[in-house]
Amino acid sequence: MNSVFPALTSLEEFRQQFPALASKAYFNYGGQGPMPQVALDAIFHAFQHIQNAGPFSEEVNAWVVQKSQETREAIAKELNVSPATISLTEDVTVGCNIGLWGIDWQSGDRLLLSDCEHPGIVATIQEIQRRFGIEVDSCNLLETLDGSDLLEAIAKHLKPNTKLVVLSHVVWNTGQVLPLTEIVQACRQNSPETKVLIDAAQSVGMLPLNLAQTGVDFYAFTGHKWLCGPEGVGGFYVNPETLESLHPTFIGWRGIISTKIGQPTSWQPDGKRFEVATSAYPLYCGLTAAINTHQAIASPQERYQQICNLSKYLWQQLTELPHVKCLLTSPPESGLVSFQVQGVSHRELVQSLEKQGFLIRTLRYPDCVRACVHYFTLPSEIDRLVEEIKK
Amino acid sequence: MNSVFPALTSLEEFRQQFPALASKAYFNYGGQGPMPQVALDAIFHAFQHIQNAGPFSEEVNAWVVQKSQETREAIAKELNVSPATISLTEDVTVGCNIGLWGIDWQSGDRLLLSDCEHPGIVATIQEIQRRFGIEVDSCNLLETLDGSDLLEAIAKHLKPNTKLVVLSHVVWNTGQVLPLTEIVQACRQNSPETKVLIDAAQSVGMLPLNLAQTGVDFYAFTGHKWLCGPEGVGGFYVNPETLESLHPTFIGWRGIISTKIGQPTSWQPDGKRFEVATSAYPLYCGLTAAINTHQAIASPQERYQQICNLSKYLWQQLTELPHVKCLLTSPPESGLVSFQVQGVSHRELVQSLEKQGFLIRTLRYPDCVRACVHYFTLPSEIDRLVEEIKK
Repeated sequence: MNSVFPALTSLEEFRQQFPALASKAYFNYGGQGPMPQVALDAIFHAFQHIQNAGPFSEEVNAWVVQKSQETREAIAKELNVSPATISLTEDVTVGCNIGLWGIDWQSGDRLLLSDCEHPGIVATIQEIQRRFGIEVDSCNLLETLDGSDLLEAIAKHLKPNTKLVVLSHVVWNTGQVLPLTEIVQACRQNSPETKVLIDAAQSVGMLPLNLAQTGVDFYAFTGHKWLCGPEGVGGFYVNPETLESLHPTFIGWRGIISTKIGQPTSWQPDGKRFEVATSAYPLYCGLTAAINTHQAIASPQERYQQICNLSKYLWQQLTELPHVKCLLTSPPESGLVSFQVQGVSHRELVQSLEKQGFLIRTLRYPDCVRACVHYFTLPSEIDRLVEEIKK
Repeated sequence: MNSVFPALTSLEEFRQQFPALASKAYFNYGGQGPMPQVALDAIFHAFQHIQNAGPFSEEVNAWVVQKSQETREAIAKELNVSPATISLTEDVTVGCNIGLWGIDWQSGDRLLLSDCEHPGIVATIQEIQRRFGIEVDSCNLLETLDGSDLLEAIAKHLKPNTKLVVLSHVVWNTGQVLPLTEIVQACRQNSPETKVLIDAAQSVGMLPLNLAQTGVDFYAFTGHKWLCGPEGVGGFYVNPETLESLHPTFIGWRGIISTKIGQPTSWQPDGKRFEVATSAYPLYCGLTAAINTHQAIASPQERYQQICNLSKYLWQQLTELPHVKCLLTSPPESGLVSFQVQGVSHRELVQSLEKQGFLIRTLRYPDCVRACVHYFTLPSEIDRLVEEIKK
């Protein structure tokens, strides 16, 4: 099964780079990825460098600009887009907020989301609805778990004045992968005004991406899940053709151009216009190092294939257990495997497993347990988890 | 002069806690403060703990909640307010944006700001003006550098429908300290609807504060300047009486309360409602450690008195130089000393000084140089800086 790694020894060697993997069986990649030691080292060195050469100095300021650009470039390579399309953010939710609040909302405009979006995004949409008097439609993805046509389930809710469609690329609770290119095409056919905002929390670092080809307008993601970077750094992609129509909302010195006497006159020409002010710059170095770790070991296609091999292996074993029901009725196309265990409290199950060194999590909707596999998950970890759940 | 420290040796001992101070004469506290080693250690240990116990686990999640609360408590102690009034943010600009975008703006409402606010804040106000059709008034603080009445210069621009007044507590370019309590009183007398938002970038960690007594509505600050915490963590205070009238804008899972099936129904009851999603949690531990370092050595009043002693010492020496003009015509009431040097490019002066180990910065408006002193600045550093500028 280990197509990415020439032999089992080299997989185990690779895993030794991640301190978090040493002592446990880890299945919470969708919550937070383990950081490779090089990423931790890069953060610590960056903090030390900034203190030694500054902290506030011309030298440090130039260094921070350079390191920020290197991070945008590393991200852009994973997404197959130009670095100029990337804004660095604090997390995926901030990226979604940039997209949601930057639309020129008018009373009566419509927004379409799915029944599987994250509560934080739903709450933002509720507040936008309250402030601007927009109409919100919802499409039902849970109904498609039996294998129904995902595109059809979404497209049938498009209306002439649907201004924004908000969906996840990989659905965080079910693990479904939505057909992004086809969804964007359906929206374009619906109206040139129908933009697409994607919550990419679970797709960046998991799926091989070619965002430019999809035509998607906005794509918000984080570095601390499948990319295994530090918590507190994410990003936001804007399609260059949509850039000018999206207004910056939270605004600061990083996004603006000022006159010689400091009077703001225009936005930065690229994705930097959505960046605000001082951030945890040393963490950028950690994310770059984490991305480089993945890119050095295998291509995005190879990593994704291995994730699917492993999630299928987990899904198949769980499916065979009589008291377990997987949400998906066919092998997952992502690293997320969600399931329900009959006759037990999922919360108690997860707590009991954590005590034994198996890290998985519960979800509220649907009420289930989610186990994630990454490309460097051990088949033996999966075997041991299934064995524990069998008990 | 060293009233905070019993003897010169203990000041020098204290300074050894800050790696950044070892190799240079540091005057950029208003840009970024140097971190004590305990703060750096706290960050590194937090990263390691999160990896060892998670990174995503019930244990880590509970730990993060606890550490976040400890940071709110440490901040609240500096501000003399309840921890429930504090939201943790990425930086001061994000805090200002929370206040600015959370107002229920109607076309024709008025906003009053000064001519000395930060370009990032000015740009945000310009965008709000464009979106909601508000009117913006400006008061002239540069005109008061001769010692005119600051309160009068501001209050005369209040109008019946002034909904928000946006000012700095310590003005970042001139170093003036605005009379906050009197300004809030004038606004309350103007109209109960006139709220006050303060850019506190230069006051938190410098001034002794009793925010609850001032009656201010919103107070946005950062941990990485005068508090000497890491870049990327700041905070936002909301007066409990104003809380319900300020709407969250950028929204995420940290600010909301959801039902059992994850449907958002209401905001967190306190300042957490303005927090969004995953942040650089390990940095919270760094900020807490930095605040504790200050609180252990001296009271806010003692620290502030020492800052004023030192800035007066610097201001007096600069005033005596024939080719130097300080912006203030009387000793500063803050740690900021801004001045103009005749016959040289300020940019070239700062670059030349940096090469010699003196870290100060230029400002664009007014065109000047800014040197900051903290309570642990050495009088000998000041002497050496003045000596260099004399050349």
